[in-house]
Amino acid sequence: MTKNNFNTIEYANGKLIILDQTRLPFEEYYIETDELETIAEAIEKLRVRGAPAIGIVAAYAMAISLKNKGDNPTQRFNKWLNRLAATRPTAVNLFWALNEMKKVFEKNISSPNLFDILLGKAEEIHDNDIEMCNKIGQNGLSIFEKPLNVLTHCNTGKLATGGEGTALNVIKTAFYAGKVKFVYVDETRPLLQGSRLTAFELEKAGIPFAIITDSTAAMLMQQGKVGVVITGADRIAVNGDTANKIGTYNLAALCKLHKIPFFIAAPMSTVDFNCREGKEITIEFRKGEEITSVRGTPVTKSEYKVYSPAFDVTPAEFISGIITDVKLFTPPFDFISR
Amino acid sequence: MTKNNFNTIEYANGKLIILDQTRLPFEEYYIETDELETIAEAIEKLRVRGAPAIGIVAAYAMAISLKNKGDNPTQRFNKWLNRLAATRPTAVNLFWALNEMKKVFEKNISSPNLFDILLGKAEEIHDNDIEMCNKIGQNGLSIFEKPLNVLTHCNTGKLATGGEGTALNVIKTAFYAGKVKFVYVDETRPLLQGSRLTAFELEKAGIPFAIITDSTAAMLMQQGKVGVVITGADRIAVNGDTANKIGTYNLAALCKLHKIPFFIAAPMSTVDFNCREGKEITIEFRKGEEITSVRGTPVTKSEYKVYSPAFDVTPAEFISGIITDVKLFTPPFDFISR
Repeated sequence: MTKNNFNTIEYANGKLIILDQTRLPFEEYYIETDELETIAEAIEKLRVRGAPAIGIVAAYAMAISLKNKGDNPTQRFNKWLNRLAATRPTAVNLFWALNEMKKVFEKNISSPNLFDILLGKAEEIHDNDIEMCNKIGQNGLSIFEKPLNVLTHCNTGKLATGGEGTALNVIKTAFYAGKVKFVYVDETRPLLQGSRLTAFELEKAGIPFAIITDSTAAMLMQQGKVGVVITGADRIAVNGDTANKIGTYNLAALCKLHKIPFFIAAPMSTVDFNCREGKEITIEFRKGEEITSVRGTPVTKSEYKVYSPAFDVTPAEFISGIITDVKLFTPPFDFISR
Repeated sequence: MTKNNFNTIEYANGKLIILDQTRLPFEEYYIETDELETIAEAIEKLRVRGAPAIGIVAAYAMAISLKNKGDNPTQRFNKWLNRLAATRPTAVNLFWALNEMKKVFEKNISSPNLFDILLGKAEEIHDNDIEMCNKIGQNGLSIFEKPLNVLTHCNTGKLATGGEGTALNVIKTAFYAGKVKFVYVDETRPLLQGSRLTAFELEKAGIPFAIITDSTAAMLMQQGKVGVVITGADRIAVNGDTANKIGTYNLAALCKLHKIPFFIAAPMSTVDFNCREGKEITIEFRKGEEITSVRGTPVTKSEYKVYSPAFDVTPAEFISGIITDVKLFTPPFDFISR
């Protein structure tokens, strides 16, 4: 691995190699493991995070559970599956990946090659994610008529996916095509995924950037320093309303006022066809300690009341386009008859 | 002092009693001192901060410099003056207060009551500040037609002034008049004056509040949870353009889009009659470490580039009114023929 490269998740010789994101950007430390508890703890403690990345780790883990032949593979498989399912109960990709692995397991339970078959499925899930990221990167190129300064929020890159990322891969792909001049990175309070993780990825990719506090974006826009804003998505309603990391709507609203294009980049699987509009999306609220302390250091009294939604919802009319692995959707958004 | 009260700055028996704001909100620790180095260090280390508060501390200190009779009062006075002038070279109120004290010193240098005269001048500066805060609080009442939820930024209260504050005193005065339902407090990155200091003051005042990350304000506005935004000002141009803590323009822009009133509260002395418009205001940039670390804890690599303006400028057309100790100014702003 060269200085300018890193792997978020790798499978080699029966083991998972996971980059410990809690130590970033200070230290590139890789956990190499074939043990259930170590893998489960890595997901729980956010050593690996980002919906697609968690799903891929879980898929490899389910193969590894049957690496060694022995008594009662069903018992062993279910033990691993139940433990992993308990790590992040709201992670949709985690359950999807566990379920995919379970289907393959049940179909091939009598095969002498069960482990290889499971590993093949995990690799397929990983490969599909890489391919999805590449397509998003390519489909995003057309939004750049000329080289622009880009502003982004949170982390939507290689650290969050099995491939090169979603919104951040649009930025990277466009940079290598000569279409991005400079990247402003929202630090992204409360968990600082921007200043910790996106900054690390941009450094690795050799892309010039500066970190800003989240409230500085408005001033940059006022001064004409932002050509386009691109963020990811956690969930997209059928009408295009998009739930994403708190602060995303702030950027979309500022873009509206300053007449700056605002794009979402996400896999097609983020579109929830059971959700007609943003109003139907339940917003998760986070614990106060994420605001009253920063990376373990108390900054104010822990008993102070906070209002800390994990996500906000950006209405479709604030979104210039949604870049997916299928194509770039533009308003009015129609994901069904595509 | 009761649980529900505190003093930012007090003079008693030849000593200054300064609340150490770096320990807030965890601990209410008061420094009691008549020593030059302790006072200078308190200003330098931001144990006392806020332009008016620093000026008042400096004024009392200059009286204390001559508390003990002895050889060469001019030498002693100048030694203190030069040391204090070097603490925060950009603090306008500091130099104003030192200059006021110097004028009184020079006029009364031969008086046997020189110390009492200087102390009287310092008390006058302090009293005027208390009076200024009270008037701002009263002049702000008229913006509340009915009880509202208020959102504010940074700290503009008793901790920043000699009295009850500027924008925060508008909020407190209105709360006691039954016109404020709830206060949302921007944590105010990078230095977190909102979550540390404004939260402390609201707790002391018994006003219900919640701390939010700075990027959450947009979502609250989208949901109709913010009736009015009130912030302070560092410098107001003659046309009404206002420089204030980074993030203020973010709020003003969001208010414009969501049709929410946005008010500035500041003493009339904040209007710079030599500054015609916001474009003429030079923006100070802060060191990267305020963003790459939080309260001493590194959160990302210190070598990462940051873009960290201390202030932003809100154009007059985004401001519903400017509440001063003289009156509430409404657009078009005319501070000259008032």
